[in-house]
Amino acid sequence: MANDSKDTRPIKDQRVCIIGAGPSGTAQLRAFEAAEKNGAEIPELVCFEKQANWGGLWNYTWRTGLDEYGEPVHCSMYRYLWSNGPKECLEFADYSFEQHFGRAIPSYPPREVLHDYIMGRAENSGAKKFVRLQTAVRWVQYSPETKKFTVTVKNLPEDRIYSEEFDYVVVANGHFSTPNMPEFEGLSMFPGRVLHAHDFRDALEFKGKDVLLVGSSYSAEDIGTQCHKYGANSITFSYRTKLMGFDWPEGFEEKPLLKKTVGNVAHFSDGSTKKVDAIVLCTGYLHHFPFLPDDLRLKTHNRLYPPDIYKGVVWINNPKLMYLGMQDQYYTFNMFDAQAWYARDVILDRIKLPDRAAMKADSEAWVKREEACKTEEEKIDFQTEYVRDLLQATDYPPLDVDHVGELFKEWEHHKEEGILTYRNRCYPSTLTGTMSPQHHTLWMDALDDSLGAFLKAPEAAE
Amino acid sequence: MANDSKDTRPIKDQRVCIIGAGPSGTAQLRAFEAAEKNGAEIPELVCFEKQANWGGLWNYTWRTGLDEYGEPVHCSMYRYLWSNGPKECLEFADYSFEQHFGRAIPSYPPREVLHDYIMGRAENSGAKKFVRLQTAVRWVQYSPETKKFTVTVKNLPEDRIYSEEFDYVVVANGHFSTPNMPEFEGLSMFPGRVLHAHDFRDALEFKGKDVLLVGSSYSAEDIGTQCHKYGANSITFSYRTKLMGFDWPEGFEEKPLLKKTVGNVAHFSDGSTKKVDAIVLCTGYLHHFPFLPDDLRLKTHNRLYPPDIYKGVVWINNPKLMYLGMQDQYYTFNMFDAQAWYARDVILDRIKLPDRAAMKADSEAWVKREEACKTEEEKIDFQTEYVRDLLQATDYPPLDVDHVGELFKEWEHHKEEGILTYRNRCYPSTLTGTMSPQHHTLWMDALDDSLGAFLKAPEAAE
Ligand SMILES: Cc1cc2nc3c(=O)[nH]c(=O)nc-3n(C[C@H](O)[C@H](O)[C@H](O)COP(=O)(O)OP(=O)(O)OC[C@H]3O[C@@H](n4cnc5c(N)ncnc54)[C@H](O)[C@@H]3O)c2cc1C
Ligand SMILES: Cc1cc2nc3c(=O)[nH]c(=O)nc-3n(C[C@H](O)[C@H](O)[C@H](O)COP(=O)(O)OP(=O)(O)OC[C@H]3O[C@@H](n4cnc5c(N)ncnc54)[C@H](O)[C@@H]3O)c2cc1C
Ligand SMILES: NC(=O)c1ccc[n+]([C@@H]2O[C@H](COP(=O)([O-])OP(=O)(O)OC[C@H]3O[C@@H](n4cnc5c(N)ncnc54)[C@H](OP(=O)(O)O)[C@@H]3O)[C@@H](O)[C@H]2O)c1
Ligand SMILES: NC(=O)c1ccc[n+]([C@@H]2O[C@H](COP(=O)([O-])OP(=O)(O)OC[C@H]3O[C@@H](n4cnc5c(N)ncnc54)[C@H](OP(=O)(O)O)[C@@H]3O)[C@@H](O)[C@H]2O)c1
Repeated sequence: MANDSKDTRPIKDQRVCIIGAGPSGTAQLRAFEAAEKNGAEIPELVCFEKQANWGGLWNYTWRTGLDEYGEPVHCSMYRYLWSNGPKECLEFADYSFEQHFGRAIPSYPPREVLHDYIMGRAENSGAKKFVRLQTAVRWVQYSPETKKFTVTVKNLPEDRIYSEEFDYVVVANGHFSTPNMPEFEGLSMFPGRVLHAHDFRDALEFKGKDVLLVGSSYSAEDIGTQCHKYGANSITFSYRTKLMGFDWPEGFEEKPLLKKTVGNVAHFSDGSTKKVDAIVLCTGYLHHFPFLPDDLRLKTHNRLYPPDIYKGVVWINNPKLMYLGMQDQYYTFNMFDAQAWYARDVILDRIKLPDRAAMKADSEAWVKREEACKTEEEKIDFQTEYVRDLLQATDYPPLDVDHVGELFKEWEHHKEEGILTYRNRCYPSTLTGTMSPQHHTLWMDALDDSLGAFLKAPEAAE
Repeated sequence: MANDSKDTRPIKDQRVCIIGAGPSGTAQLRAFEAAEKNGAEIPELVCFEKQANWGGLWNYTWRTGLDEYGEPVHCSMYRYLWSNGPKECLEFADYSFEQHFGRAIPSYPPREVLHDYIMGRAENSGAKKFVRLQTAVRWVQYSPETKKFTVTVKNLPEDRIYSEEFDYVVVANGHFSTPNMPEFEGLSMFPGRVLHAHDFRDALEFKGKDVLLVGSSYSAEDIGTQCHKYGANSITFSYRTKLMGFDWPEGFEEKPLLKKTVGNVAHFSDGSTKKVDAIVLCTGYLHHFPFLPDDLRLKTHNRLYPPDIYKGVVWINNPKLMYLGMQDQYYTFNMFDAQAWYARDVILDRIKLPDRAAMKADSEAWVKREEACKTEEEKIDFQTEYVRDLLQATDYPPLDVDHVGELFKEWEHHKEEGILTYRNRCYPSTLTGTMSPQHHTLWMDALDDSLGAFLKAPEAAE
């Protein structure tokens, strides 16, 4: 039923629009390229990317708020950001770190190194010709009559708006760029900087300061430890649901939820107070699709299995629309690949979708299963199962998800053993088996996060 | 010719969409209300405003970047902002400050007081019922077949997108909210905060700091003097075209254009350098209409007479589209009124537009005249003539623009006499003749900018 609307024209006469050239969007291009190399006919591909480069969140910019064209700045990354999970958990199955760097490198690389790796696979492919850079998608509309999407975009440097028609749209614009910004009483009178993690750029701004971070997830943990590393005077975390509970060293403190600020004094729900100089709202992000009408628009919070998309990919209400990377993420690059290969095979008609009711039932069962997960380990296992389920449907190269899942659990334990030391750990590649070498400098002492400094690493450990 | 497309249906069956409920948008509502009070039939009005309140830029928020719904934050104002021109120059001709506050108040009020005045006129009118708050305009399209505009909007709290049709659209979304953000070499490695004036909120963040401001216009001047007032260690301005040239007190310095930063050292085009802690780009704003296709979209930089809009209001290529407040501004609130009354009378068919060629010729003549202006005084006279030209076409209450023009010139001289003292000056209302009283505290000592503190002013001077 869902496939009723399948086009009978040859696939090479069909057009696919990909929105975003981050890791997910480039995975989609790569997936089609792999099929083409194996002799398949592929549709015409157009990938619209609003930034001046592909690479998504991994492109760093000093800009915050709006960019030089008035578009919201996509970047949520910051200087001195290091991977917060082992690179062995995100390795592409078709492009190992060893292949890219010509040797094994440590497990927790800084941003620039991961950026280089992502771009490396993309540059080595022929995908760049499909990407229209500095082109922001403004509006997408589906016509049931023509069975096509009209996609309206703006060429930013040319200040020119135009529209094109497509048979499929793949939405891959990420969901960690539109800040979730709650209000707290008193903020409009707080005599210092109040910002969201999305706008955090340089920890040195907070040297010597007492910093309050609201939130208890990855951003709070990482920005807090980083500010400590670069000389903040004290770090106070404020949690809504539960504390992170790491064995925090001197200088850190966890407090319950912020109630209000009075001048520069933060008041917490347990009645305690703390004078602070700056407030960073690490309160997560919104799934935000300002270019999609209601009938095409995914509505979800940040979770492992968003509703209404079959296999986490196919928009059930209109299976010519796909979403990539919309899940909360333990798995990242290789999960995006698994999704992109799946989306490709739906478009190539290699995967026959069941009818709408069956897709809905399948999706609802996964959602229920997610909701039953309580512990971190259960959640990791859940996403492992999800990725496994996708992989079995396509010819994506072998990925040992059981091994990846094990590494995620080790990583969790290593974080518990030392939130300032876990990035000194090493893990083996699940592709090549090579154990990663120790980095030449302990993370707490590694103040230079450049690719050059990182790759100085003497030689691989065995 | 341009009026060929005039609708023959009764005006009350026609629909007018107003985008934005800032001073310009509310002026439009007020203009129609005035006509209705005088017995005219008026069209159905719908004003879409994305903020939770009307008042435009005059609504302060601590937020920067994106708001709680992921929309770009409109506010470019900051704490402790005081009017940078005498209130006597912006007074509405139909609502004096004395009427609003029940007495005369000093000439340079802080933001909250001007906000109160704008809102006062609006609240006293019946206009609120036409405003759909928290509703962002997403897309506007004109159909030559139906001769209507389809306006697509998002109800933000309901997360719901819908479209409606209109006969006219009045664009009043302001042009001081999308920052113009040039790139300078080294910024991505600058170890401190880099921000645009649009994101500046609280000078106390820069207490004790060495602050660099790029730009030489109102924002640079005002943010620089304000940081000084609230305890910055030093203020360095960097100009591209010409220096401000005020007789700066100790602690201020003007430098030519920033070339690059190396670490925390700014290098200027004359070879000089300066170590700085923070950089504020006061480099102006972009006219930005992300909701308009190319055939409806005004393209201009910030100038006194943008091209392609007849009388600075009517979109020549489609006179059912109007723009309000798109000029660079000496005149503000009363100029928006003059434009809104004009736009109203075009819609009510009281003003017959000439044909397209004549509109184009008229507009080009004004543009040429603007380009011939060299001095500040000539520019003030130019905008005075522009407002006078608009006023004579409608029944907007009498406004003594010659007197207002004179006050603007006095204000310029007072700024030259003392950039930290001009806000202590007093001017007479051009409506009531009353001389404004002296404020109870000199501006440099007035650290509390609240309405309450301001209105404590003992009594009117005579
Ligand atoms: C602070 C931070 C740190 C992270 N650290 C790690 C980490 O250490 N390891 C890890 O594996 N993952 C990390 N992640 C997770 C991250 O989500 C993924 O690594 C990955 O970047 C997601 O890829 P994506 O392509 O789905 O989205 P994105 O990387 O967000 O890319 C989306 C692309 O879409 C483009 N786009 C958006 N809107 C439009 C539009 N309207 N028109 C055209 N183009 C548009 C954007 O410009 C962007 O290039 C981190 C995330 C954040 C926020
Ligand atoms: C820092 C600063 C200080 C200033 N100080 C002074 C001063 O002292 N005196 C003075 O006279 N003038 C001052 N101005 C000038 C100011 O431009 C005017 O006073 C006035 O606010 C302009 O009114 P407006 O209605 O044209 O635009 P705005 O005040 O900008 O209002 C536009 C409205 O449109 C809404 N909007 C925008 N996009 C959308 C959308 N897509 N959908 C729905 N609604 C939308 C906005 O939310 C906003 O409410 C200042 C400007 C700035 C930037
Ligand atoms: N490489 C790195 O080092 C690095 C650094 C930062 C982020 N990241 C990545 O970035 C992504 C996003 O992480 P994130 O931490 O920004 O988002 P997140 O994981 O979605 O967490 C959001 C946090 O905000 C809290 N929150 C939401 N609304 C709140 C409110 N109204 N009041 C108080 N607290 C509120 C949530 O608390 P509740 O638990 O109460 O809901 C939760 O702690 C992740 O993929 C992460 O891996 C990576
Ligand atoms: N109430 C208040 O106190 C107050 C405070 C601030 C602002 N405002 C209002 O806000 C509005 C905007 O003022 P504004 O000063 O932000 O904008 P503006 O008047 O348009 O001035 C822009 C400035 O940026 C400079 N600039 C632009 N691009 C540059 C580049 N690439 N490199 C270096 N310099 C560059 C311009 O220099 P060139 O001269 O070389 O072009 C100019 O000095 C005005 O209406 C003003 O009245 C009011």
